[in-house]
Amino acid sequence: MTSKTAPKRPIWLDESTDTVRIIDQRRLPHELTILELADPLDAVQAIKDMCVRGAPLIGVTAAYGVFLAARTAQGDASAIDAFCHTLKAARPTAVNLVWAVDRMRKALSKAKGAEAQITIARNEAAVIAEEEVENCRHIGEHGLALIEAVSRIKKGQAVNVLTHCNAGWLACVEYGTATAPIYTAHNRGLPIHVWVDETRPLNQGSRLTAWELSQSGVAHTVIADNTGGHLMQHGLVDMVIVGTDRTTCTGDVANKIGTYLKALAARDNGIPFYVALPSSTFDWQLRDGLRDIPVEERNPDEMRYVQGTDGRRIRSVLVPPESSPAANYAFDVTPARLVTGFITERGICRPTETDIRRLFPEKK
Amino acid sequence: MTSKTAPKRPIWLDESTDTVRIIDQRRLPHELTILELADPLDAVQAIKDMCVRGAPLIGVTAAYGVFLAARTAQGDASAIDAFCHTLKAARPTAVNLVWAVDRMRKALSKAKGAEAQITIARNEAAVIAEEEVENCRHIGEHGLALIEAVSRIKKGQAVNVLTHCNAGWLACVEYGTATAPIYTAHNRGLPIHVWVDETRPLNQGSRLTAWELSQSGVAHTVIADNTGGHLMQHGLVDMVIVGTDRTTCTGDVANKIGTYLKALAARDNGIPFYVALPSSTFDWQLRDGLRDIPVEERNPDEMRYVQGTDGRRIRSVLVPPESSPAANYAFDVTPARLVTGFITERGICRPTETDIRRLFPEKK
Repeated sequence: MTSKTAPKRPIWLDESTDTVRIIDQRRLPHELTILELADPLDAVQAIKDMCVRGAPLIGVTAAYGVFLAARTAQGDASAIDAFCHTLKAARPTAVNLVWAVDRMRKALSKAKGAEAQITIARNEAAVIAEEEVENCRHIGEHGLALIEAVSRIKKGQAVNVLTHCNAGWLACVEYGTATAPIYTAHNRGLPIHVWVDETRPLNQGSRLTAWELSQSGVAHTVIADNTGGHLMQHGLVDMVIVGTDRTTCTGDVANKIGTYLKALAARDNGIPFYVALPSSTFDWQLRDGLRDIPVEERNPDEMRYVQGTDGRRIRSVLVPPESSPAANYAFDVTPARLVTGFITERGICRPTETDIRRLFPEKK
Repeated sequence: MTSKTAPKRPIWLDESTDTVRIIDQRRLPHELTILELADPLDAVQAIKDMCVRGAPLIGVTAAYGVFLAARTAQGDASAIDAFCHTLKAARPTAVNLVWAVDRMRKALSKAKGAEAQITIARNEAAVIAEEEVENCRHIGEHGLALIEAVSRIKKGQAVNVLTHCNAGWLACVEYGTATAPIYTAHNRGLPIHVWVDETRPLNQGSRLTAWELSQSGVAHTVIADNTGGHLMQHGLVDMVIVGTDRTTCTGDVANKIGTYLKALAARDNGIPFYVALPSSTFDWQLRDGLRDIPVEERNPDEMRYVQGTDGRRIRSVLVPPESSPAANYAFDVTPARLVTGFITERGICRPTETDIRRLFPEKK
């Protein structure tokens, strides 16, 4: 169904039907469509097809997927196990998917009987969602200090933040990760302007981040992904803040393809490059991001066709010649050496294992 | 008019009408449309609207524009002067525009009477076009040696070249600049594969380079501009070859926006980054590219709308929200320090003023 007013979250439980509702992010910004996830496989498909995307939201959707599975399975543990296996394979890069499913299974393991499983799953998914909201709120507070510091130097002139892809509330539950410091600064009255990388091939920047910022009245300008280096060379970017789909405990950052190029340009121009993430996005096992983080290759048609509106309806147009092959790598890995700092729910740390583990001493 | 078979050049003199014909590059790859330039202002508009683009072709089109002006002016020197002034202002970055107009005026200054002017202008424009063909042919020969060297190391495995934008025959007259070594290698039977940056916002890579390479049967894959860094990190790029719109005598390279990001990635991964150019693209006056080369800002709608085919006709679709502003910087400047070498019609040189001037000692 289409909606006129934007919900405040990209995912929620509809209490009247006990099913899950999501914004279909493939149709934004030109259509606001709400989908119902009633069957557990609906959740898998929504993740695969990128109706929902962004590491924290993939995690929350997976958690609700396990809830839907518990409801369908009616106590059949092997059915839930099989579903969790399918769910984990829906997308390879975002570690929150595996993290959320494992956490849900752990919670379920304590439940006795179908009804208890359903209740525990419903509650645990809600707790995960609320925790992500709290994480993002804290990321906003910690990141605000960085923006305030630049704002003071610029004596009230707008702080120019460049971001890539969408790490906004659409990618999370509220606030966003990369956008949390931006929204927090904006809400406190600090002048801020965001350079929005359009983020080819799926245009999550020009479609989703631009839409979010428009809704909140944050000044922004959409740019081609090619543009960031030029802007940095000319002093038009004060800092870069991006999200991440998986970050190793050594500080290597998997994020939307093209992030690495912006990190290189930031380094070449002495501009700070921050990665904002909740602890659920750290992978505590992997040590070499470039070697070990799986990078998803998606359908080349996502690259060959571009979706937009012709003023009346949403259309896809083919850009290259029909006969030309295309490749569609979805992520790249930015080595820790190019990162200035991580903005987490517990504070800001440098991109070293020692510093990361100092913030999260309980993680193994 | 539309055409079924591709002409061999993007510009030519139609002898029956004594007017100039061009391929309308805005319609490629989905429509092959030939435009007639009969009035000198048609040439200005074709350059402004990017029916023709690419530094060498802008120069040749400008030369033919002066010919059309000579024919219209019928000996009125001030009319030709005024037109040349307008023509030079059509686009700011490509130095070939100014170079070609100045060369045409110099040739015209030797002519006495309207008829002589027209004849001299027609001839000089043709000479400039043929010189650019010869330049590109030589660039191909010199660049071939670089590809052969890699091919030997790879023992016959395909050499992977990444290119940005279109510096092919569509941007020149024949062969292209960046593509000349590629076509030369392909024609000699060396296995080669080209990563084609789509080159937002106007998609000259996915529309034009992919079309050219398809026509010639050169293996290629279209990628998002965001992808090159990831490919380089994983050993999938052997060299980068790009063209340029203006290169200072100190080696700073203005080229399509995003080139700088690829140069940074090439440097970070130890991959050679070559710039192919005829001497007409050197600016012998400027010394600091970043400070002194004017970077054109074009209509933001070129960024907001994407053109492609829906299978029946060419359409434009709006991607970001209607209310989101966009910026459209057309070029960036890659500092000489990131360039491995220049491939010119006289050979290959390092990116230093001494080395460049050693190849072109006659330039002041």
